[in-house]
Amino acid sequence: MDLQQMDQFAQSIIFEAGRRIREAFTYDLKVETKSDANDLVTNIDRETELFFIEKIKAFDATHKILGEEGMGEKVESLDGVVWIIDPIDGTMNFVKQHRHFMISIGIFVDGIGELGYIFDVMREDLFHAIAGQGAWYNDTPLRKLKAVPLKEAMIGINASWVAPNRRVHHEKVIELIRKIRGTRSYGSAAMEIAFVVSGKLDAYVSMRLSPWDIAGGTIIANEVGAIATNLHGQGFDFLHADTFIIANPSIHQELLENYIIPYE
Amino acid sequence: MDLQQMDQFAQSIIFEAGRRIREAFTYDLKVETKSDANDLVTNIDRETELFFIEKIKAFDATHKILGEEGMGEKVESLDGVVWIIDPIDGTMNFVKQHRHFMISIGIFVDGIGELGYIFDVMREDLFHAIAGQGAWYNDTPLRKLKAVPLKEAMIGINASWVAPNRRVHHEKVIELIRKIRGTRSYGSAAMEIAFVVSGKLDAYVSMRLSPWDIAGGTIIANEVGAIATNLHGQGFDFLHADTFIIANPSIHQELLENYIIPYE
Repeated sequence: MDLQQMDQFAQSIIFEAGRRIREAFTYDLKVETKSDANDLVTNIDRETELFFIEKIKAFDATHKILGEEGMGEKVESLDGVVWIIDPIDGTMNFVKQHRHFMISIGIFVDGIGELGYIFDVMREDLFHAIAGQGAWYNDTPLRKLKAVPLKEAMIGINASWVAPNRRVHHEKVIELIRKIRGTRSYGSAAMEIAFVVSGKLDAYVSMRLSPWDIAGGTIIANEVGAIATNLHGQGFDFLHADTFIIANPSIHQELLENYIIPYE
Repeated sequence: MDLQQMDQFAQSIIFEAGRRIREAFTYDLKVETKSDANDLVTNIDRETELFFIEKIKAFDATHKILGEEGMGEKVESLDGVVWIIDPIDGTMNFVKQHRHFMISIGIFVDGIGELGYIFDVMREDLFHAIAGQGAWYNDTPLRKLKAVPLKEAMIGINASWVAPNRRVHHEKVIELIRKIRGTRSYGSAAMEIAFVVSGKLDAYVSMRLSPWDIAGGTIIANEVGAIATNLHGQGFDFLHADTFIIANPSIHQELLENYIIPYE
């Protein structure tokens, strides 16, 4: 497995997909409703996923593709080479804001995350990593994260989890937001993960994410020392939806022990 | 009063200030602590405010300047020409993220907001307006906002107001966030206001803002039909801190009547 070659190929199709998406803004978006009104999907999501599938299958037909839009094959194990792809993470931002949406890709080889990408399509900004070799923000190496005390932390968390809810003890979340420096919420998991690996946020928490939301980001996380787990402190299995936290290593354990407490 | 000439001058010094700020990132930031740990100020904030004061006084020494850093004269009325300036709105983003901070300027003539600017320094994106003549996002005219039903609204609100607090009935805010499509929080009032006037958000709410946070934005708001008031539905007086809401006209009243209820 030549990781450098695969990295070059992955970057080339990510940049090409980004160009196609930006051009597509000149046409009208056809917005449909998936399972509920908050889950928007557009023709561009699906076309972008198909674009990736065609390119990857032409590169190597043995590679498997697990994508948000479900246009690849059914993937039931991480054996072999598996691309986990979100063609547009932050679809609501895409539709309404025309910014703050990401292409997110993680490439696993026999279950090991080897290559990770988060691409801010409108800024043309790439966060990426090669396992064991480091991570980069465009051409600049990303540094290992420096420790931050919790009271100076800036954390990405949606306001929903501060209200009573069935997933997490909200009174503990309230304690947390009173203690830290500030919260942010951008509406794209991949964007918030990219911000954590580059030190622009110190943690990001979500009560339910899918493999394609986080696959690319967790591979980058490993290279900068960010810790990504589910809310029970276990590794994400990458074939199912789960809870999720990514944090600066100096606060990951403190967050899970004292502030982000799931009901089950 | 030649508004076109003043507009050209204002744009020229805003773009120049932006260049200076971007260049300053090559130097270390000297971060001090103002009244509390969450209220960061840097040497670049102050230098930028001084830059504006010098340029404006050279343009017309009779113009008054009310700035966040307090380096201009004491301004006690809006008589004559008054520039209300936030040299860097979103200082915490500036320090930690190196993006998502704005220059915000409103120019009042005898109490009337005539020229408004919000400049995203890192994107080099300018939202601006000339009273009665329209508003623009860079060179593109901003359209009048289209009505949006509350259940499809995306609202900028900080997670703090979902938790029990002394300013606003949080249980009503919880009802609100359960009803709408989503919330966002960017850590820059001017950025969130720029998003509302350009339809990227449908409302933005804050429990305490100062004139420089909102002066530029409210002038742009008038041109696109966004409604900006305090949380009692009254106009902001631009000389004192107050509560604040800016919203799409289709939901402004509904938000104030049913969901954003201040304690006093």
